[in-house]
Amino acid sequence: MAISEMKPRFKVWIEKNDEVVFGDGRLKLLTEIEKQGSISAAAKELSMSYRAAWGKIKASEERLGKKLLIIQKGGSSGGGATLTPFAKKLIGNYQSFKDKIQETTKSTFQKTFKQS
Amino acid sequence: MAISEMKPRFKVWIEKNDEVVFGDGRLKLLTEIEKQGSISAAAKELSMSYRAAWGKIKASEERLGKKLLIIQKGGSSGGGATLTPFAKKLIGNYQSFKDKIQETTKSTFQKTFKQS
Repeated sequence: MAISEMKPRFKVWIEKNDEVVFGDGRLKLLTEIEKQGSISAAAKELSMSYRAAWGKIKASEERLGKKLLIIQKGGSSGGGATLTPFAKKLIGNYQSFKDKIQETTKSTFQKTFKQS
Repeated sequence: MAISEMKPRFKVWIEKNDEVVFGDGRLKLLTEIEKQGSISAAAKELSMSYRAAWGKIKASEERLGKKLLIIQKGGSSGGGATLTPFAKKLIGNYQSFKDKIQETTKSTFQKTFKQS
């Protein structure tokens, strides 16, 4: 098989009791909230409803037993959201976890299939 | 985060020009064809239509540029299918590729998240 044309693909995520705790979707959502400074602006940017975005965050918080967002209510700017230190660490850890799997996927694929 | 309750999950597959060449679905299908000795029996066992099963095999064969099945037509047993040596090697390679990613996913997860 001409492996030069072939690409290994992978997906990773974290579960607790068969339910998603964290994965690419939530990484994207948290990163966008950090960038936009609010859940509603992030949801809009990702073409999600506010309810869906908030539901995912809420579910992850419950499964992790940790807060991911610090919510500022009201004020002249209409409130906003920032990431907790835990959320920032989670993002960093998940990203290095993913990077390592990506690296291994690529190198293992080359090694395993080079003689096929 | 209490990582003892958390489980890293992963999925791998192989693509060529953004189309699936091989993955868990096709592994299952080929393994079942080998077991059953025919495409139609395997498709039935996996609750797929014959057309869907054959379509997947055909697409993989085209993208790989290699035959995966040896088809015996007709005869008193109504024909059958066996795996080519290439298909057997592909299955073995894909399985070791997957095993290695699984191992790395598990160990990297433990290492990365143990202090969270």
